[in-house]
Amino acid sequence: MGIRIGQGIDFHQLVTGRDLWIGGIKIEHEKGGLGHSDADVLLHAICDAILGALALGDIGTHFPDTSAEFKDIDSKILLMRSYQLIKTKGYRVVNIDATLLLEKPKIKPYVNAMREVIANILELPVDGVSIKATTMETMGFVGREEGLSAHAVALLETV
Amino acid sequence: MGIRIGQGIDFHQLVTGRDLWIGGIKIEHEKGGLGHSDADVLLHAICDAILGALALGDIGTHFPDTSAEFKDIDSKILLMRSYQLIKTKGYRVVNIDATLLLEKPKIKPYVNAMREVIANILELPVDGVSIKATTMETMGFVGREEGLSAHAVALLETV
Amino acid sequence: MGIRIGQGIDFHQLVTGRDLWIGGIKIEHEKGGLGHSDADVLLHAICDAILGALALGDIGTHFPDTSAEFKDIDSKILLMRSYQLIKTKGYRVVNIDATLLLEKPKIKPYVNAMREVIANILELPVDGVSIKATTMETMGFVGREEGLSAHAVALLETV
Ligand SMILES: [Zn+2]
Ligand SMILES: [Zn+2]
Ligand SMILES: [Zn+2]
Repeated sequence: MGIRIGQGIDFHQLVTGRDLWIGGIKIEHEKGGLGHSDADVLLHAICDAILGALALGDIGTHFPDTSAEFKDIDSKILLMRSYQLIKTKGYRVVNIDATLLLEKPKIKPYVNAMREVIANILELPVDGVSIKATTMETMGFVGREEGLSAHAVALLETV
Repeated sequence: MGIRIGQGIDFHQLVTGRDLWIGGIKIEHEKGGLGHSDADVLLHAICDAILGALALGDIGTHFPDTSAEFKDIDSKILLMRSYQLIKTKGYRVVNIDATLLLEKPKIKPYVNAMREVIANILELPVDGVSIKATTMETMGFVGREEGLSAHAVALLETV
Repeated sequence: MGIRIGQGIDFHQLVTGRDLWIGGIKIEHEKGGLGHSDADVLLHAICDAILGALALGDIGTHFPDTSAEFKDIDSKILLMRSYQLIKTKGYRVVNIDATLLLEKPKIKPYVNAMREVIANILELPVDGVSIKATTMETMGFVGREEGLSAHAVALLETV
């Protein structure tokens, strides 16, 4: 049996006039993530973690922000494609653990819905996907509500 | 055998008039961590890493900062409770690796004492617990000594 | 079989009048990393991840920035020495996954060369080393091009 670990980190600015997508779910908020795609910081970090575990490049390599194909794209599609790449290599996901860094709003009410979306895409039971959240205690650009970030780790094994 | 990985990240402001608790040890310093509990950034990151590995929620879910029960609580109690939760699920900790981001003071003199505290709680040999430290080279809120942060990863396996 | 995970984080300021070394490769840029050694943020994070997995201390313990021996040293030597320490303990590296946080320049053209350098030192096939990169979307000290950072995770197993 082969096992591998991966990690991913992502950042987006928070701006008015954009929807806030996190973990595949639309969150009610007066700002949204700025980006070429839907700017889903959590799904992007998870894409990078599973791609990184197998050294398959990163989200910028596979889904360049200069490509019209990925303009405003639903990041669930990016996660599906990333997962397809690791399946093709003969791997499955054991578990994902992630932390969202966001000052506002509270995402606790949305966490279980996010976990279900991600678990479905990755063909995992819902307890194979963990999403945690913390503020940055008003410090830095996250603390000033100028942006948000996500960190994820992934454990993969051969099928 | 089942294995799982988890990760945790925590942040606290550094303010005068508070004690500085890191890794279960009181550090001599003119500032301390601001928080509802004792604001032990390292123990909080480790709690989140072991809870996250099994998708058991996060420290904010289990020990809400709105609860009088956790006011100024010793975070060693939070780590004990988090560990109890993963034991109940049939898992043990294989190893913990963490990095503290802190500009001052030097924590090297305290690291072995921290490792012993944490290893005791997690029923690990001391070499199952790693604590590293780095400054942020005077950059950002950590660099300006306004706050501190800790990142931890955990590997768990079924007993 | 024993397995272990580790993680490492590093930061350096970007200043004029210094070369920019990342992943053992010299990158063309008008600024370079400030530090006692060659300030290779990616190699430093990887050193910390493999040392941390076995609780062998951190890069600051083994290669203190107060020592003349390590002044302007090529960090590939530090990675070799760190790897020697984990080999002596009876472990090998399974895989490394890292993310570089850097606003400019684009490092994609250099990534495969970096992976080969690191894989050679760690006695791994090149697909055992993953290097991803992201900007911080102009936010924070990385976004302002005042500094750069790297995060790495490592999976180790007994030989
Ligand atoms: Zn993104
Ligand atoms: Zn905390
Ligand atoms: Zn360094």
